[in-house]
Amino acid sequence: MLKKIVIFGVGLIGGSFARALHKAGAVEQIVGVGRTAASLARAKELGIIDVISTSVEEALRDADLVLLAAPVAQTEAILAAIQPYLQAQTVITDAGSIKGEVVAAARRALGDKIGQFVPGHPIAGLEANGPDAAIDSLYTGKKVVLTPLPENSTAQIALVSAAWEQCGAIIHQLTPEDHDAVFAAVSHLPHLLAYALVDDIAAKPHADLLFQYAASGFRDFTRIAGSSPEMWRDISLSNQAAILTELDAYIAQLTRFRGQLAAGDGAAMQAMFANAQRARQNWLSNIETAEMQPKQDRDQ
Amino acid sequence: MLKKIVIFGVGLIGGSFARALHKAGAVEQIVGVGRTAASLARAKELGIIDVISTSVEEALRDADLVLLAAPVAQTEAILAAIQPYLQAQTVITDAGSIKGEVVAAARRALGDKIGQFVPGHPIAGLEANGPDAAIDSLYTGKKVVLTPLPENSTAQIALVSAAWEQCGAIIHQLTPEDHDAVFAAVSHLPHLLAYALVDDIAAKPHADLLFQYAASGFRDFTRIAGSSPEMWRDISLSNQAAILTELDAYIAQLTRFRGQLAAGDGAAMQAMFANAQRARQNWLSNIETAEMQPKQDRDQ
Repeated sequence: MLKKIVIFGVGLIGGSFARALHKAGAVEQIVGVGRTAASLARAKELGIIDVISTSVEEALRDADLVLLAAPVAQTEAILAAIQPYLQAQTVITDAGSIKGEVVAAARRALGDKIGQFVPGHPIAGLEANGPDAAIDSLYTGKKVVLTPLPENSTAQIALVSAAWEQCGAIIHQLTPEDHDAVFAAVSHLPHLLAYALVDDIAAKPHADLLFQYAASGFRDFTRIAGSSPEMWRDISLSNQAAILTELDAYIAQLTRFRGQLAAGDGAAMQAMFANAQRARQNWLSNIETAEMQPKQDRDQ
Repeated sequence: MLKKIVIFGVGLIGGSFARALHKAGAVEQIVGVGRTAASLARAKELGIIDVISTSVEEALRDADLVLLAAPVAQTEAILAAIQPYLQAQTVITDAGSIKGEVVAAARRALGDKIGQFVPGHPIAGLEANGPDAAIDSLYTGKKVVLTPLPENSTAQIALVSAAWEQCGAIIHQLTPEDHDAVFAAVSHLPHLLAYALVDDIAAKPHADLLFQYAASGFRDFTRIAGSSPEMWRDISLSNQAAILTELDAYIAQLTRFRGQLAAGDGAAMQAMFANAQRARQNWLSNIETAEMQPKQDRDQ
């Protein structure tokens, strides 16, 4: 059992981590730190955290584990504030959706204490935010990708892994570079495509007519365009190179398809559709049942 | 109450129409016609249709209403088979997802009986297919877009409208051209984009690694890429011009975004994301509650 965990950012991600560890009886005390006094007070009221701290020095004293669950853009400032008070036994991890820039920020802020930072990314979320949205089952059966650094010890990686496993998560490991390349393709690009489609339609003179006939297929396709614009600006800027690679490949793919459509090449289009349908079906068959929910609606 | 309705294609769309009308007590007899004897037998066994007919002449005799619910590519052949036996009181409608080509096919097949054809498109569906998937509530609260022709009488349009209203649907009217332009933007384009993304990822050498980390955002974005390749080939070919217009606008939008990303223009990207988020939120607020289901999952 860990004695003391410190969480920076007690919203959905940090709060759900705290709830899961409390439920598992895996920690004696959870200390919350954050920019918003009201969120901290609410998190304490809800029993998510045991103690509110307004002093980083006090919070860090004798801490086993620190989780950064604030917006990724704050990573460097938080780590710089932590660095002077970071004791040798404390391990830090984070929950940011990009890893290359986070690691670079951590190296700048932590200097020769970088070995104490084990970067991570829980692949889970809800549309809701804030401490009231936090639930103890958010990570059950979900993946947490750790991107350990050469400076991390086996024990440091194991401590972070064990905490997430207590939350019910499945631990994967990638390099920070592979992580960012993978998520550029399967997460960042789809988000940008969904935003672009809604913005494209909204800018048309007859947008009201168009939206009137958008149905469940459109709703699901664009669900991720409901995400935070600030967060996706930060992700776009932080993972610029990998996203540009994926975006260029996708524009080339669309341009190829445009040629087939203009030529009336039904066979080529059908082959592409069938390949995509088959690949998606294989993916659905392979993915963990725990991560899937039934989907019944469709529109044409 | 209608005495006799004939349905060509007793799968999800035609079968659900039949079930809803039976439940509403809106019809005395429903006759099923189709290419597959097993489907017809199953539809009769399930009580979806009252009579199986293998003769178009017999089926059409004294019919009030005919619904074409077979694949759109069969429209012309079915209407050509119907034409010699089409009595003056019978009204035909269809359920095809494109209307311009359907109207052209109907004009070729029906000649001077074209006024008896009132084109329609129910905006509803499920991922399942066949008579076993048919449910009486499929159209409850959903839109049915009719695209009447200049040759239709008010009474003919009213007959088709009333039948769909008995199914619980809400009737809208557009011209066939407007219908196809609208659905190119809000339905056809998103389907093609989803297919293109899955195909793009599946073609990469590290596709297995990528699919391993695809999560709920990817699943919802690509749900429509699980649709029938044959159907979407036909829709792409049938609505080629309108889809090309939308696809070109979207590629231009992506190219603009690519420039902002390459330039690191965070403000421009955030403005686009925020505009899309706001437009989607407005759409969700406006759309009929009846059509919406809660969505709680999100990934980054």
